[in-house]
Amino acid sequence: MRTIAAQHLTPARFAPFGDVIALRTAPDWLINEGRCGRHHDLARLDFSEGRAGISLFDAAPVTLPMTLAMMERHPDGSQAFLPMNGAACLVTVAPDEGGRPGAPRAFVTAPGQGVNLLRGVWHGVFAPLGPGPFAVIDRIGEGANLEEHWFKTPWAVTAPQ
Amino acid sequence: MRTIAAQHLTPARFAPFGDVIALRTAPDWLINEGRCGRHHDLARLDFSEGRAGISLFDAAPVTLPMTLAMMERHPDGSQAFLPMNGAACLVTVAPDEGGRPGAPRAFVTAPGQGVNLLRGVWHGVFAPLGPGPFAVIDRIGEGANLEEHWFKTPWAVTAPQ
Repeated sequence: MRTIAAQHLTPARFAPFGDVIALRTAPDWLINEGRCGRHHDLARLDFSEGRAGISLFDAAPVTLPMTLAMMERHPDGSQAFLPMNGAACLVTVAPDEGGRPGAPRAFVTAPGQGVNLLRGVWHGVFAPLGPGPFAVIDRIGEGANLEEHWFKTPWAVTAPQ
Repeated sequence: MRTIAAQHLTPARFAPFGDVIALRTAPDWLINEGRCGRHHDLARLDFSEGRAGISLFDAAPVTLPMTLAMMERHPDGSQAFLPMNGAACLVTVAPDEGGRPGAPRAFVTAPGQGVNLLRGVWHGVFAPLGPGPFAVIDRIGEGANLEEHWFKTPWAVTAPQ
């Protein structure tokens, strides 16, 4: 089995695949008479001809090392994952190579961070590292909006060094 | 000062004003080979001619009792609030009475619950009851999208009995 060592998530590392949804160094502006900072418009959302929806994903946490046997992509829309209870999650992504995923990369979010996967990015299935639901902001619309690729040889994803 | 006793949030109580974003009794369907429940499309989003965005709000927690001196509404879009770290929040809303808020109602979310305010609903400013940012899914677009109403006599909001 081939091995991928997960990295800690950073906006620069993740930029080709999506957005890190976390507080910036400073808010974009203040609201509510200065008592609240707004960190504005942090995700490149794209729902093609569909519309945005908010759903919840509820799954048992995974543990590392973990086997990555399959990746999927949503050709018609971006997909954002936001922890509701501060859980971290494992995010695996891969560049497209001729209609199938190339070598995957794995990232571990900091507790309380969210991520947004760009439309069409290959990724592993939802893999929370702690309990509690995640809010998912993704496309509501017609069509399957799903492609899957099963690896002939699965990958093993290990925790960050 | 007039007093409003906050209630615990329930979908039925909140329905005229918006949506409670929390796990249903059972998921709408299972994904990821049965390992993840999807609770689907839980919020009545409406961004008129704008688009959906994900921002973060970062504010110091409030404590109850709290003074409610002003309510606002966003005529062009709904606004959803999702805790990233499990915090509860106080949600004050009011029916419209001839272009100004009628008697307010106050709700306290359970930790980890989110809410979505329908387009145009009068509400008090963001009032988290614990630390940590909230993700806000609201309209990105042109225009102020904001009306404010200051009460001649403020309200006092007390904790649920």
